[in-house]
Amino acid sequence: MANGQWLMAKFLIVKQVQAYISENRERFLEELFEVLRIPSISAQSSHKEDMIKCAEHLAMALAKAGADSTEVIPTEGNPVVYAEKIVSPDAKTVLVYGHYDVMPVDPREEWNTEPFEPTIINNRIYARGADDDKGQSFMHIKAFEAMCATDSLPCNVKFMLEGEEEIGSPSLYGFCEEYKEKLKADIILVSDTSMISLDTPSITCGLRGLTYMEVEVIGPNKDLHSGLFGGAVANPANVLTRLVASLVDENGHITIPHFYDKVRELTAEERDAFNKAPFSLESYKQALDIDDIEGEVGYTTIERTGIRPSLDVNGIWGGYTEEGTKTVIPSRAYAKISMRLVPDQDFEEIGRLFEEHFRNIAPKSVKVNVKFLHGGAPYVSPTDMEAYKAAEKAVEEAFGRKPLPFYSGGSIPIVSGFERILGTKSILIGFGLAEDAIHSPNESYGLNQFDKGLATIPLFYKHFAEQIED
Amino acid sequence: MANGQWLMAKFLIVKQVQAYISENRERFLEELFEVLRIPSISAQSSHKEDMIKCAEHLAMALAKAGADSTEVIPTEGNPVVYAEKIVSPDAKTVLVYGHYDVMPVDPREEWNTEPFEPTIINNRIYARGADDDKGQSFMHIKAFEAMCATDSLPCNVKFMLEGEEEIGSPSLYGFCEEYKEKLKADIILVSDTSMISLDTPSITCGLRGLTYMEVEVIGPNKDLHSGLFGGAVANPANVLTRLVASLVDENGHITIPHFYDKVRELTAEERDAFNKAPFSLESYKQALDIDDIEGEVGYTTIERTGIRPSLDVNGIWGGYTEEGTKTVIPSRAYAKISMRLVPDQDFEEIGRLFEEHFRNIAPKSVKVNVKFLHGGAPYVSPTDMEAYKAAEKAVEEAFGRKPLPFYSGGSIPIVSGFERILGTKSILIGFGLAEDAIHSPNESYGLNQFDKGLATIPLFYKHFAEQIED
Repeated sequence: MANGQWLMAKFLIVKQVQAYISENRERFLEELFEVLRIPSISAQSSHKEDMIKCAEHLAMALAKAGADSTEVIPTEGNPVVYAEKIVSPDAKTVLVYGHYDVMPVDPREEWNTEPFEPTIINNRIYARGADDDKGQSFMHIKAFEAMCATDSLPCNVKFMLEGEEEIGSPSLYGFCEEYKEKLKADIILVSDTSMISLDTPSITCGLRGLTYMEVEVIGPNKDLHSGLFGGAVANPANVLTRLVASLVDENGHITIPHFYDKVRELTAEERDAFNKAPFSLESYKQALDIDDIEGEVGYTTIERTGIRPSLDVNGIWGGYTEEGTKTVIPSRAYAKISMRLVPDQDFEEIGRLFEEHFRNIAPKSVKVNVKFLHGGAPYVSPTDMEAYKAAEKAVEEAFGRKPLPFYSGGSIPIVSGFERILGTKSILIGFGLAEDAIHSPNESYGLNQFDKGLATIPLFYKHFAEQIED
Repeated sequence: MANGQWLMAKFLIVKQVQAYISENRERFLEELFEVLRIPSISAQSSHKEDMIKCAEHLAMALAKAGADSTEVIPTEGNPVVYAEKIVSPDAKTVLVYGHYDVMPVDPREEWNTEPFEPTIINNRIYARGADDDKGQSFMHIKAFEAMCATDSLPCNVKFMLEGEEEIGSPSLYGFCEEYKEKLKADIILVSDTSMISLDTPSITCGLRGLTYMEVEVIGPNKDLHSGLFGGAVANPANVLTRLVASLVDENGHITIPHFYDKVRELTAEERDAFNKAPFSLESYKQALDIDDIEGEVGYTTIERTGIRPSLDVNGIWGGYTEEGTKTVIPSRAYAKISMRLVPDQDFEEIGRLFEEHFRNIAPKSVKVNVKFLHGGAPYVSPTDMEAYKAAEKAVEEAFGRKPLPFYSGGSIPIVSGFERILGTKSILIGFGLAEDAIHSPNESYGLNQFDKGLATIPLFYKHFAEQIED
């Protein structure tokens, strides 16, 4: 085929794909809603059955979309949905990774709609998982369907949808080891991140790592009357506040010894480039309804989330937390504390440093338990790889504007695992926005984000495939 | 009547009272169990009906015991049970105060028996309220019954049993104002405290005051993803730990400005006398299963709870507190914080100082709400008053050992209210023990404590009445 003819054919195919998507958009949304109705919360064991239900539902959806084979593969935890369509042994292979598990819904009372009954309000889908990551994963299934239906799939495609991302993918590492061959691909395509805005599209090229700990401070062997014992016995809740408060100093520096040893410091030039991303402190504060920001002294907000580690209390509890008063010294108090990590911090080492430090600072008047809950390494996606260039072109065509490379503060711990175990890089084209409120009450996903995603994905396949054909 | 004859008659009457108690002891216990079965938790509005049920039950019990009249008097909160028996306008009048409300039962899972199904194990009654204060109040009803039944009641008796002591007696202050005349008495008799031990009986002559606050730290307008925002936004849970930790310094000193201004410092002699009470640090630590104590530098454990103020976190909560992990920056975090006060601290002033200080130390990156939940003034019961001497004699006769004056770390806020409103002093003869675990799971009350109480109370009436006859 002459080059001009070939290009024209490809162009027509893209047109057909987009036409198919437009014609079937309402059905796509209805089908997404079915997935969103399954309360697949991986953190809560009471939802075990929902995880299986959701996995089976997605396997069916992939089969209908055009996969040659689909499987629901059991793991020690929640099953992995695997599907593939091999168009040619010579074609490039794209492995689509996504996850069907979602975050818990608490605080439940802050939701304006039912978290598992998707509701469209002002052109946004409100539901837990609407963005993260059911909405984003489902766009890939539907883009795949559109390319299959129009006979224009230019690559081999494999799908791997897991049910444990929100709890740190504990089973997926072993799964990747076991199915190394099956998972062979030229690139792993992930839509589980956000863009700066629809006007300023971006591609995530950095993810922070994560070390998630739980601490327990144990005082007297039972709850005590705070009058009879108050002032004479260490109160585990008071001690917990002291210990946790001391983990970050007044300059926003984390005080754990050796915590920063492996943090890669950027050059002045790199920092300048990094701070070129558009950012308005006023809109940021206004969107969050806060009067002031807070963070590590000497770094900008973009740097604080993009290239600097952080330490957050994700949960804290102890004593009487219900209505009214109870004059008690609680026997135990707890906190869930996570740290976001940057290259080249090692999440397991950070867990050990945290535990050692926490034990060291605990006074003799209490005992402490420190548990490592989960973690993952930071990840950097190079901007000079083929897939990045294909993604850049695809986004530019779909959005009308060249995307910026962006360092997200979030973590997808398994992504660095993929590189280590499978030897395959990931490209992170996420269509989320800050306003999607992922992990929060009233999570949502804009219909325009859904549409933009469906427009972009087939273009990525096209450009990624063309690179090999060129 | 000649003096010798009179004494003999009195002696025989005491014998008769004790005989009546022995004969009816099993019935007394059964009737107490009926009271303990009513879950009258004042802190939780779901138990509103139980409060009324319990009040009506006790009014009936007082009528059966021999009261001339009984009433369940409504208040803005839970009703007050009032009863009286007037033997003579010339006789002294004893006003018995107690409370029928109990503390919540959480943590429920740490109870070995049903909290509202009293169970005797090793001669102890296990139930919420077994000691505090249903068990102790009920002894007074039964001692009254025994004196009525044997026609040996030497004083006028009034009962006032309230249903809001555990939440700071919000309605009883107004009740006392309204029924000042009705409540006229020579002494208020209260059994809502503890002794050092049955071998070292004691009479409580000091109670700490209380200021109970709740604080809320408000950050962003919704829970945020801790990856996308972590390090750049003040986390209300982190800020809460900082603020709360800073309220007490490394010497165990409370840092609120002017907090200690009105604390009465004891002389060296007073402190010496105070420290004469038997105390074993080793048994104390062993009983609580702690390796070390903690408190204000420069004071002994007895002083720390008896004559020094304290500050305790009674509850703390925020963010994700369930199973597993959730990577969230909570929008809000909370703590319930109470301070025990000593003479001459003013509980309302301390509330104002706390609020002002907490607002001052909060950074601009968060908003705070500070609520005063309840409070009460410290109380000192003079050891040179008639009622103290009568109590001392009664305890000595019943226990075979002269009781020590004892400063409890606990608070019964209304007791100082009685003095202020009614102009009447209180005598605090409590039969509780540290091992009763009041406010904790597995609250209990020893049958020997119940028996000792029943033996002591009629003796108190006798000696208190004799003082007027002398």
